[in-house]
Amino acid sequence: MKPRLFTPGPTPVPENIQLLMARPMIHHRNEDFQEFLSACHTKLQYLFQTTSPVVILSGSGTSGMESLVSSVFGPGEEAVFVNGGKFGERWGELLVHYQIPTYEITKNWGTPVTSSEIISVLEAHPKVSTVFLTHSETSTGTFTDIKTITLEVKQKFPEVKVIVDGITSVGSHELKMDEWQLDAVVTGSQKGLMIPPGLALVAVRTSLVEKISTFKSKSFYLSLQDALKAHSANDTPWTPAVSLIIGLKYALEMIEEEGIEKVWVRHQILGESVRRGVTALGLKLFSESPSNAVTPVFLPEGIEWKKFNSHLKKKDGITIAGGQGPYTGKIFRLSHLGYYDAFDMITIMAAIERALSASGYKFTIGAGVAATHHFLLENLEK
Amino acid sequence: MKPRLFTPGPTPVPENIQLLMARPMIHHRNEDFQEFLSACHTKLQYLFQTTSPVVILSGSGTSGMESLVSSVFGPGEEAVFVNGGKFGERWGELLVHYQIPTYEITKNWGTPVTSSEIISVLEAHPKVSTVFLTHSETSTGTFTDIKTITLEVKQKFPEVKVIVDGITSVGSHELKMDEWQLDAVVTGSQKGLMIPPGLALVAVRTSLVEKISTFKSKSFYLSLQDALKAHSANDTPWTPAVSLIIGLKYALEMIEEEGIEKVWVRHQILGESVRRGVTALGLKLFSESPSNAVTPVFLPEGIEWKKFNSHLKKKDGITIAGGQGPYTGKIFRLSHLGYYDAFDMITIMAAIERALSASGYKFTIGAGVAATHHFLLENLEK
Repeated sequence: MKPRLFTPGPTPVPENIQLLMARPMIHHRNEDFQEFLSACHTKLQYLFQTTSPVVILSGSGTSGMESLVSSVFGPGEEAVFVNGGKFGERWGELLVHYQIPTYEITKNWGTPVTSSEIISVLEAHPKVSTVFLTHSETSTGTFTDIKTITLEVKQKFPEVKVIVDGITSVGSHELKMDEWQLDAVVTGSQKGLMIPPGLALVAVRTSLVEKISTFKSKSFYLSLQDALKAHSANDTPWTPAVSLIIGLKYALEMIEEEGIEKVWVRHQILGESVRRGVTALGLKLFSESPSNAVTPVFLPEGIEWKKFNSHLKKKDGITIAGGQGPYTGKIFRLSHLGYYDAFDMITIMAAIERALSASGYKFTIGAGVAATHHFLLENLEK
Repeated sequence: MKPRLFTPGPTPVPENIQLLMARPMIHHRNEDFQEFLSACHTKLQYLFQTTSPVVILSGSGTSGMESLVSSVFGPGEEAVFVNGGKFGERWGELLVHYQIPTYEITKNWGTPVTSSEIISVLEAHPKVSTVFLTHSETSTGTFTDIKTITLEVKQKFPEVKVIVDGITSVGSHELKMDEWQLDAVVTGSQKGLMIPPGLALVAVRTSLVEKISTFKSKSFYLSLQDALKAHSANDTPWTPAVSLIIGLKYALEMIEEEGIEKVWVRHQILGESVRRGVTALGLKLFSESPSNAVTPVFLPEGIEWKKFNSHLKKKDGITIAGGQGPYTGKIFRLSHLGYYDAFDMITIMAAIERALSASGYKFTIGAGVAATHHFLLENLEK
């Protein structure tokens, strides 16, 4: 059985990168490695559309989030975050962990926050120094318009910093760090970057770099102050995950070759093609503001997640993601983040049809595949 | 030019493991991965010679050290650590970072601490709850007799916990966690485990697991409390470095096949063969208590590190390690940690002879190779 992965992280690793990562091990304090690291540092600026530093931490996406929360707060400062899914909630857990006084904006899962909601909190709480946003909330497949929010927040509160979880948006949604005045963006290696998990990438705009340099991070291994200092010497504070950084360089080259704008457009079209496919099958989309990275879909009435997923996994070799938190067993999530093309979307639609059919759901076989196929044929340039 | 790595981490990765890690990516919340994780959890107990849990963190060795320092102290407790090299010093930096009242035992680099020195500190400071040791100090190639120290400490102070940096000793020195009553031992993936950097392995004895469960870790990503809780459900708290964990399983299988006692003996013999080789060349060993993982050697009078190293690296493709801290430029360090055999030791001796010769050092060509070769022929079973 041919295995196929359609989860929003880890995502499939391009075969040539898998083999390039299998090259003989090199030492991280030697020239060969420094060339890889330096190339990654430069190419990451292109990915985030910034002239500021992007540091590479060896850890999961959460480690990158912690590096920010533990490194950016001065005494007496407060924070606001948006809890509209599992990963927005994580900003809150980190802020509570570090005892930062925090205001929470709660949203229904699938509904994004608006600038006016954030501005109201900032108006009421003048000590808030930092806003934490989630660009693409992976648990709900929901896109938040961080561009509009940040530009409007900055107009009224130019000193307030905006920090973005871009873990599943970097490489799948337009993101222009400098133009949009984002102060920090974090992503993970196993998402739009298409390599195995184990790296967090944290982009920090110069004004925030300066602030971070004025006080000691509350984390040791994840000190952003130390990571930024090492970055300026083309180094890392600790032994880095060498093989993943080698893979990162090749993944960034692939993105450069395709062109970042085309990568964003490809994700938008792949996402839309899947949404059209599942809608043509009579299924209901979960999010009112769909992400280009992952599409959550309600399981039809009477279809049991375990049986449906077991057919996908055990009969057809297809791995998708289930619902998280309150939506466990109620939704399924299809990823189109990373190393995917038109044929992969047709494949996943065919697989969904096969599993729905085996689970007893009534629909016209081929309707989903056709809708996806048609949309891709008309919209995705080859 | 054929590249060869002789650094004490990263160490060479077996070619078959490099390719096994290049298998198609799998999702970490799926059965396929859970089988890998569960196998690693069991096999790690054999590596550490313990029946207690060994957790896998995605991060460098330092992240494993931080997970311990941030998770094991109750209010009012104090610590003692030994500063006899760069990595002993790191325990101190971590303890200071977390504001644990700490007593430092300073040793000359190359000289190990004794049990009586530690017991004196414990007698003078009854609030000390935890002793931090370094089994093989990588910066100085120095072995500390943690077995004797721990057993003697525990006899007088049964409640005191002993936590060991085993980063370059696990797999190179005899280590019996349960029999020696070690409370925690940490290692990294890129050392005796022979896989790329990116994982820290932390073994925690049951009595310390219980203590850790009673208070919240000061770190979030590196919370040992969370890692142990996830471990008991055959899970990890955050997205793990999937490809490295796959590699870990195969590396642990190699160690099982050879047998851990034989792995220890092999390292002891390889280390001794290198020491005999460099001594036969008239060079002076750095450490008075040599580690089986790495051999630091004084550069002969008049031989410049940069020129010597450049010959090794650029003419012969050989990467070794230089001195650290006060010994930068004064010593070089040869690794025999991990995936090495007799022929590798003969190769590194030949390379050292070539570089010494090119640097103008006077000696009998072949004397080092012969001493190493003879010792291996007589002592290393095939």
